[in-house]
Amino acid sequence: KAVFDPSEHPHRRFNPLLDEWVLVSPHRAKRPWQGQIETEESDNKPAYDPECFLCAGNTRINGEINSNYTETYVFTNDFAALKQDTPHYQNEDPLFKVATEQGESRVICFSPDHSKSLPELSVEEISQVVNTWQSQCIELSKNYQWVQVFENKGSVMGCSNPHPHGQIWAQQQLPTLVNKKQITQSAYAEKYGTNLLGDYGTKELTNKERLVVENTDWLVVVPYWAAWPFETLVLPKFTVTRMTDLTTAQKLSLADIIKQITIKYDNLFNCSFPYSMGWHGAPYDGQEHKEWTLHASFFPPLLRSATVRKFMVGYEMMAEAQRDLTPEQAAERLRNLPSVHYKENK
Amino acid sequence: KAVFDPSEHPHRRFNPLLDEWVLVSPHRAKRPWQGQIETEESDNKPAYDPECFLCAGNTRINGEINSNYTETYVFTNDFAALKQDTPHYQNEDPLFKVATEQGESRVICFSPDHSKSLPELSVEEISQVVNTWQSQCIELSKNYQWVQVFENKGSVMGCSNPHPHGQIWAQQQLPTLVNKKQITQSAYAEKYGTNLLGDYGTKELTNKERLVVENTDWLVVVPYWAAWPFETLVLPKFTVTRMTDLTTAQKLSLADIIKQITIKYDNLFNCSFPYSMGWHGAPYDGQEHKEWTLHASFFPPLLRSATVRKFMVGYEMMAEAQRDLTPEQAAERLRNLPSVHYKENK
Ligand SMILES: O=P(O)(O)O[C@H]1O[C@H](CO)[C@@H](O)[C@H](O)[C@H]1O
Ligand SMILES: O=P(O)(O)O[C@H]1O[C@H](CO)[C@@H](O)[C@H](O)[C@H]1O
Repeated sequence: KAVFDPSEHPHRRFNPLLDEWVLVSPHRAKRPWQGQIETEESDNKPAYDPECFLCAGNTRINGEINSNYTETYVFTNDFAALKQDTPHYQNEDPLFKVATEQGESRVICFSPDHSKSLPELSVEEISQVVNTWQSQCIELSKNYQWVQVFENKGSVMGCSNPHPHGQIWAQQQLPTLVNKKQITQSAYAEKYGTNLLGDYGTKELTNKERLVVENTDWLVVVPYWAAWPFETLVLPKFTVTRMTDLTTAQKLSLADIIKQITIKYDNLFNCSFPYSMGWHGAPYDGQEHKEWTLHASFFPPLLRSATVRKFMVGYEMMAEAQRDLTPEQAAERLRNLPSVHYKENK
Repeated sequence: KAVFDPSEHPHRRFNPLLDEWVLVSPHRAKRPWQGQIETEESDNKPAYDPECFLCAGNTRINGEINSNYTETYVFTNDFAALKQDTPHYQNEDPLFKVATEQGESRVICFSPDHSKSLPELSVEEISQVVNTWQSQCIELSKNYQWVQVFENKGSVMGCSNPHPHGQIWAQQQLPTLVNKKQITQSAYAEKYGTNLLGDYGTKELTNKERLVVENTDWLVVVPYWAAWPFETLVLPKFTVTRMTDLTTAQKLSLADIIKQITIKYDNLFNCSFPYSMGWHGAPYDGQEHKEWTLHASFFPPLLRSATVRKFMVGYEMMAEAQRDLTPEQAAERLRNLPSVHYKENK
């Protein structure tokens, strides 16, 4: 009788952070693709674009003028999804339940250079981005329980401006996915007396099958439960619950690991690799939250090439996420890529 | 002091079926779009395409030949994500939890006519599709606890063949989202002694604010907790838990309501409107499941025009779904559209 082979047989893997399953169908990777072809981002962007709303000194869509910034630059989103002055209201109707939300949405330009995304910035420049993430979290956590740091990269990921930038949305209530991770990490700590992602990181460091890159302080794995083809999880090797607690040395090594993983990504299909990425850590609610581990996720849509993506549709929208190659296969491919950016090898 | 105005102020709405929240930022609808532009599907497809893998009599990618079908046509997916003969295996590791899955993936061609999607088929032709959904569920439910009926329409929704078709994936275990709906509907029935979607449908029929179309047996609403801009929910006006229990009359009126809602969709931006849609009902586990109501969801990506979509990225992937117009505004727009397909008015 056949024995289960994860690289051959359809199976489901459990995401312990979100309490949900992912269907893995490795044999489906052989499927030819005849659907939508994405447009590749241009490899030749100018360092300054007079038409760009985010370049230094330019006028934004709402008439405001960007400063002549030389490092990172933060401003309030011109079309903020969250606002500070929203009146308070909530009800308890089980079927028509609503609650207003107060918050802020900010944009963070990573660099004045219009042409360079994270893998092309120096470790020093990336550490300015990390510093800004931290200082924004310190500032916004005074007024908000949750600060969501994230980046949408590439037009295929809904990014409407090619200038390297990310976003920071702060709000009063815990968003759905964060609340789930609060529940799962608490339950794990209660049941096993240890930290879920701490235990997980330790095992991945021993096993190494899903490890992509590491340095003294950080590791990057394709998580066992990855949904997107080349999804990765950035984990600390030390105990830390929040972005606001990182030391100067840990921030510098974080900049290094971000450069490493984003270079691997760009080298996978020799393109500016699109993704959404973001940070999760303990809420800023005045409690200690030992059950949490600070971590980042990268969710990249590409599957086979710079122009062929994975669609999370149909079965995925109605039933559960589904993937066509195993996390181990994805990790191996990323791990074996050069650590120098393809543009520097041209 | 300002009073909460749902069409003005950022707020969160609760999805009682999935136990998650959606962020509504209605003021953000004014945001100009400078990001990715989608390609419109061609309006002039031939009724028969010799190159199409799904047209009657043509040879498929794996060498099999389609029958000369004249109504609907069902075959096993050439790259099935689920297979019958997968060996059984599961473990109980909290961090590396896995279970193999047995199942089947089938394709259902809606009609031999390559050029006509659901809104352009007659009610009689659509009722053949409904009949096929039902007969497939009757057959597959003998061996599987779950039968997922769905359709991906349009290349923007990952559909790799323009021939009108849907899919049916059957499997042993309950997928993540179905399992959630099992839990929420059971909890509601336990707490209130009534049926969640039954109560919800009754209230929407009285309120009418989110109602799009209805007939004797069915109603279609933009649910109070809709995530996608023009998402809709198809609900029965009678008590029914599963697709397999629909009577001939109910199937015919279902075909009518499907024609009505998909015509509205095509008329919104005068294009073949892309979406993923699918059916959820009680699992086929031998139990009665009075807490369930059979329902369908349409998840369409378009936001502003035939070429400008909503991206569920960044904040949405890390935190929770976010929408830029209220469900009431979306319902009003759909409701006010003509009930005759735009191509028939040309
Ligand atoms: O099976 P298809 O149509 O080739 O593929 C499409 O639908 C599947 C099921 O929703 C998805 O997993 C794929 O990502 C999508 O491209
Ligand atoms: O704010 P942006 O970059 O204009 O918009 C992008 O990111 C937002 C937050 O992830 C999403 O809600 C939008 O759908 C996306 O297009």
